[in-house]
Amino acid sequence: MKESLRFRLLEAQLALAREASRSVVLVVTGQAATGKSALVNELNHRLENRLTEVHALAPSSEERARPYWWRYWRRLPARGRVGVFIHGWYGDALFARAERRMGEGAFRDRLAEIRAFEAELAAEGVALVKLWLDIDRDEQGRHLEALQRDPERAWQVKEHDWQRHLQHAELARLGEAMRGATEAEHAPWQRLAGGPGQAPAKAVAQRLVEAMVGARPRIEAPPPLTLPGGSQPPRLATRAAPAPPPLDKADYRRRLAEAQARLAGNAREAQRRDIPVVLAFEGQDAAGKGGCIHRLTSALDARQYRVHRIGAPSDEERAHPWAWRFWRRLPLDGRVAIFDRSWYGRVLVERVEGLAAPADWRRAYDEIRRFEARLLAHGAVLGKLFLAVDKDEQLRRFHARAETPHKRHKLTEEDWRNRERWDDYCRAIDEMFVHTHGVDGGWALIDANDKRRARLAVLERVNRLLEARLAR
Amino acid sequence: MKESLRFRLLEAQLALAREASRSVVLVVTGQAATGKSALVNELNHRLENRLTEVHALAPSSEERARPYWWRYWRRLPARGRVGVFIHGWYGDALFARAERRMGEGAFRDRLAEIRAFEAELAAEGVALVKLWLDIDRDEQGRHLEALQRDPERAWQVKEHDWQRHLQHAELARLGEAMRGATEAEHAPWQRLAGGPGQAPAKAVAQRLVEAMVGARPRIEAPPPLTLPGGSQPPRLATRAAPAPPPLDKADYRRRLAEAQARLAGNAREAQRRDIPVVLAFEGQDAAGKGGCIHRLTSALDARQYRVHRIGAPSDEERAHPWAWRFWRRLPLDGRVAIFDRSWYGRVLVERVEGLAAPADWRRAYDEIRRFEARLLAHGAVLGKLFLAVDKDEQLRRFHARAETPHKRHKLTEEDWRNRERWDDYCRAIDEMFVHTHGVDGGWALIDANDKRRARLAVLERVNRLLEARLAR
Repeated sequence: MKESLRFRLLEAQLALAREASRSVVLVVTGQAATGKSALVNELNHRLENRLTEVHALAPSSEERARPYWWRYWRRLPARGRVGVFIHGWYGDALFARAERRMGEGAFRDRLAEIRAFEAELAAEGVALVKLWLDIDRDEQGRHLEALQRDPERAWQVKEHDWQRHLQHAELARLGEAMRGATEAEHAPWQRLAGGPGQAPAKAVAQRLVEAMVGARPRIEAPPPLTLPGGSQPPRLATRAAPAPPPLDKADYRRRLAEAQARLAGNAREAQRRDIPVVLAFEGQDAAGKGGCIHRLTSALDARQYRVHRIGAPSDEERAHPWAWRFWRRLPLDGRVAIFDRSWYGRVLVERVEGLAAPADWRRAYDEIRRFEARLLAHGAVLGKLFLAVDKDEQLRRFHARAETPHKRHKLTEEDWRNRERWDDYCRAIDEMFVHTHGVDGGWALIDANDKRRARLAVLERVNRLLEARLAR
Repeated sequence: MKESLRFRLLEAQLALAREASRSVVLVVTGQAATGKSALVNELNHRLENRLTEVHALAPSSEERARPYWWRYWRRLPARGRVGVFIHGWYGDALFARAERRMGEGAFRDRLAEIRAFEAELAAEGVALVKLWLDIDRDEQGRHLEALQRDPERAWQVKEHDWQRHLQHAELARLGEAMRGATEAEHAPWQRLAGGPGQAPAKAVAQRLVEAMVGARPRIEAPPPLTLPGGSQPPRLATRAAPAPPPLDKADYRRRLAEAQARLAGNAREAQRRDIPVVLAFEGQDAAGKGGCIHRLTSALDARQYRVHRIGAPSDEERAHPWAWRFWRRLPLDGRVAIFDRSWYGRVLVERVEGLAAPADWRRAYDEIRRFEARLLAHGAVLGKLFLAVDKDEQLRRFHARAETPHKRHKLTEEDWRNRERWDDYCRAIDEMFVHTHGVDGGWALIDANDKRRARLAVLERVNRLLEARLAR
């Protein structure tokens, strides 16, 4: 590599770190014996290695026990840094398909997921560089044999290299399909000749410099994910039916105990069958989310669940794409994660308070649909519960909180500020229902003006979701 | 639990979260069939569950491939939060010893480690509450049989419960030894009667309230870890021997290539044998740490190593005991972690700049010795390299950096400020050598006035460490 290019690469990387407004992800995949490791080593040698992370994975037990994409989300570089993935998400699909561990339809589905994943990253400031290294089949064979014969380098040849040599034509065909399906201006492929005597490092360094400091590419949004149509999405206004009479205490207690016993059994069975459960609670301030969650968790084993209160992000979270903080909290199989406020903050508080730009929260609808689709595809139970109170009822509860010593901490300045924007929030909530109400990931709109009925309704909903999943 | 106690518990927990100056760790262990789960569920029901984390572990593959304590460090609650560990580090030792998977000596060693671990946490503001639940052997048997007969609750009885029933006397004996060895004012044991009809939740809630808001206990420091005596610790002044003549470029290149080839072979073998390698680089500004690390990593496979530059901690790191940020970066077995500045910042920059109180950086010597002892006990190779330059040479390099466009970014205001405290740093460095120079974890003081010789010396040192380990 020429000195001037090395210098530009280093300068570009330092600028990347200084500005910390984007990160760079380099994926290196392709045929066997094309010198991928040598290329990555050469690049790594030229990069500032304190700002670079290289990943070549064999998934761990923690990774296998979570939705597929978790293993990549957790490894995304923070803004200002470079992440290098050898094979990465492409290798998983490519080799699984070549070895017929994955059907053609599943392979196509995975490519669509990859396209969406990369579009989401790009929109969040991740610059993507993707390399496919090619080699002629005969040359590949000669190269592998030469390596095998050299005692100093024989260790470089693995069993799977020979297998991939035999599958050269199939991998070429799959690679072409893969590149075709995932080519985008924001995530372009570069096909390079690999193997002995080839030195593509210069071309790649050039691409990295562009990715680090060049103009941001136009993001090509993937086709929106259409949710399988089911019931109509709820609307806040439709709760206006005459309120049922209040529940007397004895009756409430009996029904609560029944619902909790049922939940305990369902949760135990879900744990036994390694089914993860993700519950998202949203609702106006003082709608009683905490109380409902408490009635839920009372029926669960403390070792099985975790409640995540979603407030302001930490600085590590701010340095990653917005969805990272939710991915990192996904439960292991068999566990329950309860979100007290959730990823929907993106289209509620961040929208209404102007914390996210309109283009950003608008694309979040699709990102959320995909996020939830990943959970469901992994076999998770997904419950989305919205607790709605009327404006008058909220005011009554605010006053009650202000007057009760052990509830006073629950009432903050922010609650009063949010209340002033009541109508803006209502608009955002109804729009959220329309855009994110699917068959499996449907919203339950729960009338929370009566706390007792609301708690029973939450338990009923979660029980039904679990029972539907357990009956599959 | 009485309403007033519940209220005090909740209030205490909210104060804990608001102040975020300490965290609470509750460990629950003891005999089988004592209702540990029921107790934890009851407590969890009373606690604010958005601020509480319950852990009952079966270690994952990622955990087994790192030093033993990693699994607990990663799960430590942040300040303001409560972490509940069922059996936790006590269960590991107790059951391993009872089942004779662990010898008596190793059991004693582990108890000493526990004592030190808890003292370290306490000194960092973690309030510890430890419970041992007891039950009479006959009552335990009757209770287990009753559970077994009840179709609703038979699932609660596990194979190991019967085994532990048979070992009741042995577990009682081990438990007593364990409590005796780990009792401390900052980490007191509470022995309670468990089993049917017992409701120790009230007593425990009372202890939790005290831990959350009570006076901080006096921290009883564990006996300092004496390092096996070996060579004398280095001293900065002892480098004053007449400098060897500079190395000519051709000679340097040849020797560098040889050392790197040797390192490549050693690192590959370490990877094959799943040996983790941890290298800590310290040195004055402009001593050439980056250049040395670069020469090292050039000989390694990019997939095998990771360079961690240690600067200001993130807010998540600040919310944990100071060593947490180093524990979280420990490599998997077979990988290499290179720290560009390290945990020694605690007794260098944090000491000299007054970022840590004297009592805090002073106890760090012992904490560091123990941290490194854990790495070594796990079988890691630990290299600690200090690159020393003279004050004049540093000034020459500062000027050279200021004049070279592509090195200018390396020179900051802070470098000049640090230089003003040259003597303070020298004193701290020499003291660090004295306190943290052991046989296996010894310091290599490397004269870095000649960059070429320094790089060769670093490679030589790392090669020797690897070869000594590989020869075991």
